[in-house]
Amino acid sequence: MNNTTLRIDIVCVVPQSIESPMSTSIVGRARERGIVDLHLHNLHDYAKDRFRHIDDTPYGGGAGMIIQCEPVFDCIEKLLAERTYDDVIYLTPDGEQLTQKICNDLSLKKNLILLAGHYKGIDQRIRDTLVTREISIGDYVLTGGEIAAAVLTDAIVRLIPGVVGDAESVLDDSFMHDVLDAPHYTKPADFRGLKVPDVLLGGNHAAIRRWREEQSLRKTQERRPDLLKGKS
Amino acid sequence: MNNTTLRIDIVCVVPQSIESPMSTSIVGRARERGIVDLHLHNLHDYAKDRFRHIDDTPYGGGAGMIIQCEPVFDCIEKLLAERTYDDVIYLTPDGEQLTQKICNDLSLKKNLILLAGHYKGIDQRIRDTLVTREISIGDYVLTGGEIAAAVLTDAIVRLIPGVVGDAESVLDDSFMHDVLDAPHYTKPADFRGLKVPDVLLGGNHAAIRRWREEQSLRKTQERRPDLLKGKS
Repeated sequence: MNNTTLRIDIVCVVPQSIESPMSTSIVGRARERGIVDLHLHNLHDYAKDRFRHIDDTPYGGGAGMIIQCEPVFDCIEKLLAERTYDDVIYLTPDGEQLTQKICNDLSLKKNLILLAGHYKGIDQRIRDTLVTREISIGDYVLTGGEIAAAVLTDAIVRLIPGVVGDAESVLDDSFMHDVLDAPHYTKPADFRGLKVPDVLLGGNHAAIRRWREEQSLRKTQERRPDLLKGKS
Repeated sequence: MNNTTLRIDIVCVVPQSIESPMSTSIVGRARERGIVDLHLHNLHDYAKDRFRHIDDTPYGGGAGMIIQCEPVFDCIEKLLAERTYDDVIYLTPDGEQLTQKICNDLSLKKNLILLAGHYKGIDQRIRDTLVTREISIGDYVLTGGEIAAAVLTDAIVRLIPGVVGDAESVLDDSFMHDVLDAPHYTKPADFRGLKVPDVLLGGNHAAIRRWREEQSLRKTQERRPDLLKGKS
């Protein structure tokens, strides 16, 4: 690992559930090339009993199981003793909503811990004490935070310079300029009578740029006018 | 498969990247029990040349590669000829924002196709012709739609009755009543001097319910006042 490597430690209950997204495609190649140093930690390894229990019923009653303080404190405190972390991020649907801007900021960090809940959630004392930031990937509930941690890792890692082959391709993604991406077309120019817009075939680069800007703006106005409010 | 099975066909470029989340935990068990009939389709299997190319450069220039019409039409039309689908959903950051309500609605469907882009995106003619609905899992960009399809599948499948052991646990999740979930605590009552709130230890169920409602409402007001706007 070189000194610009981003280290990510994912602390979770079912690490095997995100092995494939974290070892294929862009994230897999970034790990092979030493740009990202990713570690998956299984909370069951920090259980105290031989049944590897790490959860119990909620105080005050109610459905679902809650992850206990001790295995999470033991795992995360071990990591915090080894190096300095920029953030201990808990993935939770009631956290701050993830945006491309947050992904950009996190891609510049050195060491991150991503804590993923499972079952009904984690003991609140973990959130009050160990966690420095809470992030939600969207307004919906998942089986566990593992896949949310995988989403966040993918979104961050692809922004690190050198990870995506064609750096320009990242710079004009949706949200990079608070507008949605323009429509794209590729060969053939005529597919079963469905035609590519003439302007894209013409080679007039100023006209193409203008057309794309208009399309981006129109799509954003139609679908996500909220994104345009912050713009001058 | 019984006649209440939800069938989901995920059409994508790197199916191996979501094999683990789609075969472990809740989704894996729902598949084993025949509640969900999940199929992963590799668009490369529908390539026409021996190099299995399915993408080409964008008309009008620019960075990134675009997935071509032909393999996507071939794969999806084959599926559409076999059965009726409720929706052909394209996962894209410029789609409709996924909510828990959409997940609830989709969990009641019979047959769904989830189309995941990769590289810079897919040819617009696919979106104009085959796709019936476009969904975004959040305001950020991923390497590919595969992981977004896995997120959507997980969020839908766990809502199907019988999938999550304790049905009640799903009903009081965040967003189910337009408020965020209350804090949870489990044993021990004192962890290194960090105490569980007295009310949860007392056994007064009316007081516990009131405390949880207050906590939910306060957290929602602080973190997500936008969720409360629709409430009376």
